[in-house]
Amino acid sequence: MKAEILATGDEIRSGSLVDSNSAYIAQKLEETGIEVIRHSCVGDDMESLEAILKEISSRADVAVVTGGLGPTDDDMSSEAAARAAGVTLAPDSEAMKCVEEFFRKRNYPMSPSNEKQGMLPRGSKCIYNPVGTAPGFSLKIGECSFFFIPGVPFEMRKMLSEGVLPRILKLQGNEKKFCMVKTISTFGLGESVTGERLAELPEKFPGVKLGLRASFPEIQVKLYANGEDETVLKNMVGKAADWVVQKMEKRVFSAEGHSMEAVVGELLNQKNATLALAESCTGGMISNWLTNVAGSSDYFLFSGVTYSNDAKIKVLGVSPDTLARYGAVHEETAKEMAEGARRVGEADYGLSTSGIAGPGGGTDEKPVGTVCIGLASPESVKARSFCFRFGRRAMNKTIFAMTALNMLRRELLAD
Amino acid sequence: MKAEILATGDEIRSGSLVDSNSAYIAQKLEETGIEVIRHSCVGDDMESLEAILKEISSRADVAVVTGGLGPTDDDMSSEAAARAAGVTLAPDSEAMKCVEEFFRKRNYPMSPSNEKQGMLPRGSKCIYNPVGTAPGFSLKIGECSFFFIPGVPFEMRKMLSEGVLPRILKLQGNEKKFCMVKTISTFGLGESVTGERLAELPEKFPGVKLGLRASFPEIQVKLYANGEDETVLKNMVGKAADWVVQKMEKRVFSAEGHSMEAVVGELLNQKNATLALAESCTGGMISNWLTNVAGSSDYFLFSGVTYSNDAKIKVLGVSPDTLARYGAVHEETAKEMAEGARRVGEADYGLSTSGIAGPGGGTDEKPVGTVCIGLASPESVKARSFCFRFGRRAMNKTIFAMTALNMLRRELLAD
Repeated sequence: MKAEILATGDEIRSGSLVDSNSAYIAQKLEETGIEVIRHSCVGDDMESLEAILKEISSRADVAVVTGGLGPTDDDMSSEAAARAAGVTLAPDSEAMKCVEEFFRKRNYPMSPSNEKQGMLPRGSKCIYNPVGTAPGFSLKIGECSFFFIPGVPFEMRKMLSEGVLPRILKLQGNEKKFCMVKTISTFGLGESVTGERLAELPEKFPGVKLGLRASFPEIQVKLYANGEDETVLKNMVGKAADWVVQKMEKRVFSAEGHSMEAVVGELLNQKNATLALAESCTGGMISNWLTNVAGSSDYFLFSGVTYSNDAKIKVLGVSPDTLARYGAVHEETAKEMAEGARRVGEADYGLSTSGIAGPGGGTDEKPVGTVCIGLASPESVKARSFCFRFGRRAMNKTIFAMTALNMLRRELLAD
Repeated sequence: MKAEILATGDEIRSGSLVDSNSAYIAQKLEETGIEVIRHSCVGDDMESLEAILKEISSRADVAVVTGGLGPTDDDMSSEAAARAAGVTLAPDSEAMKCVEEFFRKRNYPMSPSNEKQGMLPRGSKCIYNPVGTAPGFSLKIGECSFFFIPGVPFEMRKMLSEGVLPRILKLQGNEKKFCMVKTISTFGLGESVTGERLAELPEKFPGVKLGLRASFPEIQVKLYANGEDETVLKNMVGKAADWVVQKMEKRVFSAEGHSMEAVVGELLNQKNATLALAESCTGGMISNWLTNVAGSSDYFLFSGVTYSNDAKIKVLGVSPDTLARYGAVHEETAKEMAEGARRVGEADYGLSTSGIAGPGGGTDEKPVGTVCIGLASPESVKARSFCFRFGRRAMNKTIFAMTALNMLRRELLAD
């Protein structure tokens, strides 16, 4: 079965609103083994709506349409669907009941414009909306089964899972397919080099599709397979994943698609170890990432975001001599920062960053993009320097933070 | 002129990535007075790509296409464009130069697959990519002028503004209209309440279009006007903006659309004042935001991300008695944290957060969403508590951070 997704509404068409619904619906459809072939978006315009509904009906077996079911004049999905199907609108007792019930339950007065929401194209079936005023509906246009649901994300998600996906699964009948997806998170190689390194995959594992997703500076390797036998698929994708992990070597930080901060947190948890940070150039980005993970207070104790040299000396105990002799961006300083964070935070590990994120502050010797990372463990302290060439401040901060966490991750694995 | 936008790529088609590029492009096109009639998305599939390019060429005057310009096999935009236009691919000296230059500047080895990026459809014009390996190109297919640019948002934005929009403006020729846009950044009211409060705008200022853009927890009020006389437009939008600022009162933090962290930084700069933070529940988010602003080292000195109580005592000098008597999430603790940050960081202002971001840690008395914010100035120290009901950890951290910066902003304005 081939599916299409249509988002309607002037806010999305004109760009004042980003359409996140279509991605959500696509993911849910692909997970049930249905191939999504196209997304589209048009505004609140009757001609465009009617035209695109007809086009979709000529290409797809199923389609999910969001938006345009509200009570106002610019909500025209029902009317457009009726026109595309060549039928008229008629009061639908179930839809009418949905709308009335919504207002009665909340003790809201019903406005005359809400009655419009009880009118559906003849031949359509109402889709109950448990959380809003606008009922949805399904309707066959040509050979394609359309499902119309509201565009409010919260209502859309609820109705998709309760009212739409079960009906689509029924339509699939014997055709039902499984879709297996596996995500492997990597860091350290660019998208093109990763692509080249994995180029043999389609040949070695027929039936497994490879996708690369760059979310700077991480590259996610995605493996997809569709078919009828879930066990066969699992086995197939699993073998391909093992091959990818072997090919990408130490660049793989999660074979389960987890984030770097979650992986580091999990390793610290496993070792029952704690962490403190000393962040200069990353400016709190590493601690912000780490504390996005629920439960991070189990292992994350403290970060000293020491932007000024005074703070490095006073809070972390970095020696003024070291700063005077080597400067803030130096391996010796990074070592003292890491040791200071470990000591002050009373943690098992101390991790530090000091570098030049730009745009200013670079010199010939230490250009923008230079970072020194220090790592203090219960046994030792070490530091390494890196020089990246991304130019932009935000990218530099991000790759500095990722490199530091990756250095800690490898230390935790080696111990 | 009618425009369409096409996003390509399996990640977007299958929903693993939300397409935020198309909204961005739509907004920019509408701002220059061009009507966007449709967005579409297809995957990395030659047949689908060729078909949709032909369809678009039959409907639109201009089209912007993102993605598929990378070096790997699933990057097929150039080939698809060539097929749709009925031409062949050929090495393009300008495109080749772009690719080579990128690698030379960075001292990276060029891989053979990058050479593919120097091949463009015959008759196309290269669009220079100042920040990545993939050059873009423009090509006429039928009567429609297509602009192909990369899907990486950072590269897309740069090339859209430098390489695409100027060419589209040229195409507009005599049709040229000015589009005036003004963005007012607000915080403190939801989208619907903001909409209601500004409902009279279209009536009071005919010709000015109102758009609301929610970027949690900020609501941007956007005012648009199109026309031929730039001075008239400026005057019209300026008056409407004044009215919005008056209506939204203290919720406006920038009448120029700046970010909260930039506004706070600017105020600190103006007063020649410095800032230190003590972050518990925000986990480094505030310092991360502040240090995203270039030049922030002029006023930002230190943040103690004190997740553990020990760190609060040891680094910030919070009294163990206060912690024992009131707990970490309390106005008294927040005050001592703010004072401690100010003292340790040797700053003029100290700002602190302590709260419960969730999902765990809430009680009946202090539910998830509770935050205490402390603010120490050269003259005094104060604290306030807030309770938000967003549920999600990431949203809580964000609104805590924004509320804290807003409290500091208002203090800086009041002084």
